[in-house]
Amino acid sequence: MRILVANVNTTGSMTDAIAAAARAVAGPDTEIVPITPAFGAESVEGNHESYLAAVAVQEAVRSYAATAEEPFDAVIQAGYGEHGREGLQELLDVPVVDITEAAASTAQYLGHRYSVVTTLDRTVPLIEDRLLLAGLSARCASVRASGLSVLELEQDRDRTVAALVRESTLAVEHDRAEVICLGCGGMAGLAEAVREATGVPVVDGVTAAVTVAESLVRLGLSTSKIRTYAPPRPKRIVRPVAER
Amino acid sequence: MRILVANVNTTGSMTDAIAAAARAVAGPDTEIVPITPAFGAESVEGNHESYLAAVAVQEAVRSYAATAEEPFDAVIQAGYGEHGREGLQELLDVPVVDITEAAASTAQYLGHRYSVVTTLDRTVPLIEDRLLLAGLSARCASVRASGLSVLELEQDRDRTVAALVRESTLAVEHDRAEVICLGCGGMAGLAEAVREATGVPVVDGVTAAVTVAESLVRLGLSTSKIRTYAPPRPKRIVRPVAER
Amino acid sequence: MRILVANVNTTGSMTDAIAAAARAVAGPDTEIVPITPAFGAESVEGNHESYLAAVAVQEAVRSYAATAEEPFDAVIQAGYGEHGREGLQELLDVPVVDITEAAASTAQYLGHRYSVVTTLDRTVPLIEDRLLLAGLSARCASVRASGLSVLELEQDRDRTVAALVRESTLAVEHDRAEVICLGCGGMAGLAEAVREATGVPVVDGVTAAVTVAESLVRLGLSTSKIRTYAPPRPKRIVRPVAER
Amino acid sequence: MRILVANVNTTGSMTDAIAAAARAVAGPDTEIVPITPAFGAESVEGNHESYLAAVAVQEAVRSYAATAEEPFDAVIQAGYGEHGREGLQELLDVPVVDITEAAASTAQYLGHRYSVVTTLDRTVPLIEDRLLLAGLSARCASVRASGLSVLELEQDRDRTVAALVRESTLAVEHDRAEVICLGCGGMAGLAEAVREATGVPVVDGVTAAVTVAESLVRLGLSTSKIRTYAPPRPKRIVRPVAER
Amino acid sequence: MRILVANVNTTGSMTDAIAAAARAVAGPDTEIVPITPAFGAESVEGNHESYLAAVAVQEAVRSYAATAEEPFDAVIQAGYGEHGREGLQELLDVPVVDITEAAASTAQYLGHRYSVVTTLDRTVPLIEDRLLLAGLSARCASVRASGLSVLELEQDRDRTVAALVRESTLAVEHDRAEVICLGCGGMAGLAEAVREATGVPVVDGVTAAVTVAESLVRLGLSTSKIRTYAPPRPKRIVRPVAER
Amino acid sequence: MRILVANVNTTGSMTDAIAAAARAVAGPDTEIVPITPAFGAESVEGNHESYLAAVAVQEAVRSYAATAEEPFDAVIQAGYGEHGREGLQELLDVPVVDITEAAASTAQYLGHRYSVVTTLDRTVPLIEDRLLLAGLSARCASVRASGLSVLELEQDRDRTVAALVRESTLAVEHDRAEVICLGCGGMAGLAEAVREATGVPVVDGVTAAVTVAESLVRLGLSTSKIRTYAPPRPKRIVRPVAER
Repeated sequence: MRILVANVNTTGSMTDAIAAAARAVAGPDTEIVPITPAFGAESVEGNHESYLAAVAVQEAVRSYAATAEEPFDAVIQAGYGEHGREGLQELLDVPVVDITEAAASTAQYLGHRYSVVTTLDRTVPLIEDRLLLAGLSARCASVRASGLSVLELEQDRDRTVAALVRESTLAVEHDRAEVICLGCGGMAGLAEAVREATGVPVVDGVTAAVTVAESLVRLGLSTSKIRTYAPPRPKRIVRPVAER
Repeated sequence: MRILVANVNTTGSMTDAIAAAARAVAGPDTEIVPITPAFGAESVEGNHESYLAAVAVQEAVRSYAATAEEPFDAVIQAGYGEHGREGLQELLDVPVVDITEAAASTAQYLGHRYSVVTTLDRTVPLIEDRLLLAGLSARCASVRASGLSVLELEQDRDRTVAALVRESTLAVEHDRAEVICLGCGGMAGLAEAVREATGVPVVDGVTAAVTVAESLVRLGLSTSKIRTYAPPRPKRIVRPVAER
Repeated sequence: MRILVANVNTTGSMTDAIAAAARAVAGPDTEIVPITPAFGAESVEGNHESYLAAVAVQEAVRSYAATAEEPFDAVIQAGYGEHGREGLQELLDVPVVDITEAAASTAQYLGHRYSVVTTLDRTVPLIEDRLLLAGLSARCASVRASGLSVLELEQDRDRTVAALVRESTLAVEHDRAEVICLGCGGMAGLAEAVREATGVPVVDGVTAAVTVAESLVRLGLSTSKIRTYAPPRPKRIVRPVAER
Repeated sequence: MRILVANVNTTGSMTDAIAAAARAVAGPDTEIVPITPAFGAESVEGNHESYLAAVAVQEAVRSYAATAEEPFDAVIQAGYGEHGREGLQELLDVPVVDITEAAASTAQYLGHRYSVVTTLDRTVPLIEDRLLLAGLSARCASVRASGLSVLELEQDRDRTVAALVRESTLAVEHDRAEVICLGCGGMAGLAEAVREATGVPVVDGVTAAVTVAESLVRLGLSTSKIRTYAPPRPKRIVRPVAER
Repeated sequence: MRILVANVNTTGSMTDAIAAAARAVAGPDTEIVPITPAFGAESVEGNHESYLAAVAVQEAVRSYAATAEEPFDAVIQAGYGEHGREGLQELLDVPVVDITEAAASTAQYLGHRYSVVTTLDRTVPLIEDRLLLAGLSARCASVRASGLSVLELEQDRDRTVAALVRESTLAVEHDRAEVICLGCGGMAGLAEAVREATGVPVVDGVTAAVTVAESLVRLGLSTSKIRTYAPPRPKRIVRPVAER
Repeated sequence: MRILVANVNTTGSMTDAIAAAARAVAGPDTEIVPITPAFGAESVEGNHESYLAAVAVQEAVRSYAATAEEPFDAVIQAGYGEHGREGLQELLDVPVVDITEAAASTAQYLGHRYSVVTTLDRTVPLIEDRLLLAGLSARCASVRASGLSVLELEQDRDRTVAALVRESTLAVEHDRAEVICLGCGGMAGLAEAVREATGVPVVDGVTAAVTVAESLVRLGLSTSKIRTYAPPRPKRIVRPVAER
């Protein structure tokens, strides 16, 4: 099975890291195909950049689908709290999995309530909104910010782990979470450290999404085309491309 | 005062119609500046096209702001149930008004519950989602589809009015709505006919948004920059442009 | 256009202050007509006094409507978190605007969540209840009390501003509000001071309500008479009047 | 124990009927003291009349409390879906029971969901709002109108029963209610007929409220005075009285 | 009238204490019949034990009903936040009252919001879940744990009261509760001490449930048999019994 | 990996059918270990039987865990809308998956809203309640009953498919569902027929649960033990066993 994993930003090293995390959990017969969008921000932290990412990912996946020699079986959008999953669902016949939703759905199997620990304070409302739309907010205890930007996450691993552990602990003790979701596609490698420090299960969205995508494919299930996610109607569209 | 009114699709005649509706209600000192996006769909009916519209409008407004000789005081995004308002709010210091939200907020002053009557069945969930995110769904009785596409709306005015009246009547009698919002930027001229046939107030989003934008400007109020809608952080962004 | 602005208490100097705030934002062609009820409390702080105010305002507006030489175009009920708006809507054909709702609706255009900062702790539940009924509580982060009574508000402006800034700051930092509504008709003149100290938009209900009322009149919209706010049915009613 | 039962309208024969219903279920040591307000409508069907009733009941109970030779132990406000209970709670140290809430709370012990069947269509939103404020709407399947006015209820008993049975049956079969609340103080005597015809428990608000009031008195419980329902603060109030 | 009061654990002294509390408030013609289950835990603190209790109580009540010489009129399940009430409702024609729900419904008559103060932190989610299912969570301010286990409650009365008062005070001041429910069947005797220390009404579930059960019997009301709580269908069932 | 799949009723042929469905989707290295409870009902249709099932499954799994030579990696409770999952989570260190929740979580990836089509009308509220507790009801369009009992499902396959298709079609067209969950453990083999007739994705709980369980094991995730699902505290428990 081939699963496309679309990074939401234009930073190739992040695409590589996400692909590596995905491969670490993927089944032996699963091929992970990483995608980097042609336009947008080097890191996505806010609505404007997230909307750019949504369109850039949709265009990248469209382009890949039109030119790839081999078909693919599922797509993962590897941005936490980002816009766009619904557009991919319209464009494709294969299942689409957003890592925000995969993490939350997975967390709900593991405890009475879960929290998300993310990067900057300004991204908290985006995540809250995506969970609300996805129907996954009733058991969300809180979304908390570590205060670190996406690019800062990788600069000093110890500082990053300390910040995530601090907010996770507050989530568990103050907000009564019992499970933590790491709220950024670039936090995949940190789950074990946070789990050890807090004693609660820690869910990474990318790896959770890989197992969800594989599951949907194995179950022979894909997006309903009856209404919301029907293919776009034929019409005249001017496509966006990356400026030179 | 100058108010930008951004059409969400690339059809210039629709931009003209929206601008005319806006001007009909604008105050004597208000200049309406219409904007047509450089890329996207000729009509927006679904998530993929709506995401394209969101980015195209944001790029068009950014471009206008960077090059216009005169400043503007507010922006209206004239698409019903479309993505993107949050991105504009980050990019601008002036207030941003989405017509979906302006219509619903206005309707709430007029009756115990309101319904939206829109175009195609597939756009109903988009409108529901925008109202949910905007915190305006508690008093929404229903969102109903007329079954007519955006482009069909103008083909046969009698058929269009008949379809809107049929669904509005069902909304009033079956869903217990007391006010109707016309759920498409291109329905502005039809409000009076629907009001006459149903006997309930009918709100058009474009005209409602003009009065909201003027009100915010007169009150000296604009988007909070404290968290969610802070300006994008400085970073490397590859911009999308229209393909040739 | 003539807009009635009804104070909810019997203190004439407050009526004057509310009228002055309303006039400061009203359009050049708008006449503000202040109304003071004939019975009720000198300041309204609780349910019993609020119910008295509801009836006193309804009776005062009825009386004005029956005897005024000139018609009026809209009515504003200038009490924050008070009962009664629905009764006025039944009695009148012109639009009715409650300042609690005008402030909240206006705030929702400006940020992801808003808080209300009001007078005494005991009035917090009244405001929460009115927002719940109005369908405006989903994005309300909190209602906070300054601890000052209505009559204390004007005694020491510095103390009042300090109390409002203290609670507004807690609302922004702790409750994650991005906009503040001043929760008392008598706080109109303090918005700028709170905005300067907190850096977030501050909405005053009276001025917001004036722009809403003007907008509804310009849009030709008024209360739906189809069900909830139909005129009272003809029946025998013994009217209340002020005791001598 | 002495329980005041306040009719919300000025029709003395209704007060008598309500008192008779209350006495039929009251314990042997309970004295029912009926109260008729001095002003307001002969029957209450809408917000304006309901606000009049709220104040008239509060004034009547205040007046009774000030002049009665014997104290009373609880007060029942015998109007369905009417404003005012909160004001009585502030004025009194003894428990206050609203029949809308007593019926709903009682119904919740008897089935998974309940419906209310009331008089006119226009009163449905008032009942919905009171249940929402009371925190009793989560298990409310529907509020349905029989189409009969308060005064019509008693004109033709067979027609009334038929209308109530028709709506109750729709509530059970279509809305999935399992219990019916009769939504008018004047329907007390009809519960058994509706129960026989529908096969589900039928709750009358007046009789339910009597048992609730007696229970609270026996448990030694009364309204919390810590915040919302603290006594009104001392201040200058002009009282309303009935016009002559 | 005879009311069965079923303890949820196997500790006979607790059954005695619960029966004593019930008798203290029961009417002169009410006989309280205590029931102790034949299997399950000596104290119930968690889901596994609560499920055991649910079945053990159902089997005990079935057994009693099959063998008792005199019929009974109502059943109270005297466990706070425990599973099982719905099963009893299917098995019996007489009303069933859960003390969690009786306490919350009673508290809602007494203040704008209520909190529950219970034993161990781990039981908080069980109580929250039962209130959610019962449609009684909208006005629940919080469920707080004293940190004392069921068996510790009786070891040191002063320590117990101090812990309950500490959490009750936090509930009132921080969570804005106005009424406290004591969240354990074994706390009946402590209500007065907590009320004195906090100044707010304190509701005990067992005594509240007795008055609710008596009220339902007097009103001639019992569980609806139309759908959810219809009697079990005839089928082959292997019964559980206590191991030897 | 070894996954226990616990039937909730005592009918061995159903256990076999569930195990066969599970094996059909399980990975090549997954061993499915079926469990049949020692007591309870031959089919579970209502709360009393569901509570029996909850305890019987917990006792059966405890017993298996205590005596099995090989450990197991996850447990699936294969009853739709049944009580008990929380108790298993306390007893075990390995993940526990309820098929009701697995089906709903899976459906949410596939469409904007989903419906459940189940057996008898009386089981609808049980499923609604489980979805509410699980935080999965926000996007549930409806739970509909086919009118067939568990044992009737297998008697006439054509009739069963016809009934499921009828209700599924109503769910899609009337309730606006876009995905159908088959709401009974015994419907596994019917998904394809319903999908063909309706054109929307159809999710079976047992097969969905197998992929969820495998995913959790592969991700190294299990139930949080921090609060709600901590192991039962040591105490004296009398165990239930099957009567002879």
